[in-house]
Order: sequence, then structure tokens, then C-alpha cells
Amino acid sequence: MMFKDVHYAQYMTEVNQRLSSNGIFLTVKGEKLNTMTIGWGFIGYMWRKPIFIVPVRKSRFTYGLIEKSDEFTVSIPFDGLKKELALCGSKSGRDIDKFKAFGLTPVDGKIVNTPVINECDLHYECKIVFKQEMDPVNLDTAYDKSCYANKDYHTLYFGEIVACYLKE
Amino acid sequence: MMFKDVHYAQYMTEVNQRLSSNGIFLTVKGEKLNTMTIGWGFIGYMWRKPIFIVPVRKSRFTYGLIEKSDEFTVSIPFDGLKKELALCGSKSGRDIDKFKAFGLTPVDGKIVNTPVINECDLHYECKIVFKQEMDPVNLDTAYDKSCYANKDYHTLYFGEIVACYLKE
Repeated sequence: MMFKDVHYAQYMTEVNQRLSSNGIFLTVKGEKLNTMTIGWGFIGYMWRKPIFIVPVRKSRFTYGLIEKSDEFTVSIPFDGLKKELALCGSKSGRDIDKFKAFGLTPVDGKIVNTPVINECDLHYECKIVFKQEMDPVNLDTAYDKSCYANKDYHTLYFGEIVACYLKE
Repeated sequence: MMFKDVHYAQYMTEVNQRLSSNGIFLTVKGEKLNTMTIGWGFIGYMWRKPIFIVPVRKSRFTYGLIEKSDEFTVSIPFDGLKKELALCGSKSGRDIDKFKAFGLTPVDGKIVNTPVINECDLHYECKIVFKQEMDPVNLDTAYDKSCYANKDYHTLYFGEIVACYLKE
């Protein structure tokens, strides 16, 4: 894979459009390699660093992996992979190897040890520098009701973006 | 003021460039109206809503105001206002009325009761739907040391973006 480095903020508009439509891939490597579809997330700047925030619910297979890892990658298709994104959001890595099952190819990234997904266009490599479990005490009650009926709150993982590139 | 509505993510690249260079204005109205310069923040999508995250340290005059408010606005100049941004980041609203002192004009927004700043180009109106004090236990120790020598940690305010527009 050839990498074309881009500024972390260059494609933020596209990333948000994808987040709020078909989702994007969050990949974590622990005792197993797994990817899941996320539809929620943030890009920004804090501690004088570019940061990608990914929220993961405790019930997720990814939660157990990311809690033991200090990094993650995010891979984004600019279009297509709609079926794969739907499947990676509904199936659990506890039961299957999603890469094999859905024809996704993990390839080595540039800096971190977690791979990115070859079939995607844009990739972020992130090192976790902060994390925090949501405390619902200060969450809007309507959101609490509509998004957390099972009290399955998110932990927010703040990843310093150490590489951002397009696949060529 | 004429408003031209834009998609919240349309200018994310520009917002991040401004955040990481001269900063942007965070305006809060409490017992007093005040604006401060922030260089850190996030835009993203969560709870099926566009969200702007702004971090505020406890020592700030803004902290007392925003803790008693349920909204804030963010105003961004695409260029210029460098001096005003530097002053609004270094002077405290405890001592002066920054709007009067630095020639900034508060004007009514579209939805929230907190004004936006007339001299800026892009505006976000936000209703606070979640907030959380940083718990440094899971913060990278290098960041803790470099950014929080006085243990003056941030509270993160998650504001649902209820309006986003350019001034015309």
C-alpha cells in the first residue's frame, strides 16, 4: 500500500458525513484483531495535538480489546462498503472474524501496530492518551432515555492522531 | 445581521485550522456576558446529533458562567482579529467587559439566548446536553505534566449544535 499523508483536518467534512450516514471502521488489536462500525465520534485539537475521539459501549467485544490496548485505527471509505459497514456494526467479533467473513483486508499501518483496512480510502492511526467513562449524571435526560435504555454507557477514547493518510 | 445557514461540518477544516493557530471565541452569558479564546475543541456526531465540545478550566471566569448556563456560542473569524483573540485569551472577564474593551459587538443569534460576535464569519449555537469533568487518572502522564502543572483540569461541555451559519 502506498500512503499519501494528508493533514488530519483536511477531510473532516467527509468523515462527519460518513459518520452520520453509513459509519466508519474502528479497528483494534488485542488478543484478537477486530473492527466495528461506529457512527459517532469527534475530531479536534487538544493538548496541542490532533485528537480523534471514539465512543465504545461496555457491551461491545471491542471494549474488552481497546481496554487492553493503547492504540486504535480508523478507516473510512469515501463511498461504497455499505453492506460491510452494516454487517460490522451488527455482528460481533466474539462470534466471527469479520475481516475474513466480509472480505476486508488488514494491512500494516505506518506507525502503530494496529492495521488499517485496505478497502478504505482514508486512514487515521491513533495512540490513546486519555479515556473516560461517561457519567450519566450530567447527560440530558432525553438522550439518556433514547440512547441508553440498557444503561450501556460509552467510554470515550481520546486518540492522538499520529498518522493520517490516503491509500493510493 | 443576515444569516446564511450552513451544514455544521462544512467548515470543520477551517475551524480546526483556526483552533490550532489563533483560536476561536467561546461566548457564554450568565450573570455577565463574556467571551474567551479557546484553542482546543472538537466537532463531531453523537447521540444522533451534531455536537461541539468545548473544554473549560475551573480557574476561568467562563467556568462559573457556563456551569450556570445551558448553552454557549462559538464564533470564528476566517482571518483577522488576531489581536482581539490574543487579548480575549489573556484577560479575564472578572476585570473587564471584553466586548467593550476590544471592540467586539454581541448580536442576537437565531435560537439560543447567548449572542454571537458580529465581527466573526462563522457561528455555532449550542445547547449543552452533557458535561464531564476530566478525571486525570487515565490521562497520559506527559500531557498531565505539560498541560496541567497546576492541576487545573478541564470540564468538557458537549453542546448540541442547534444552528450553524455564516454572517452575510
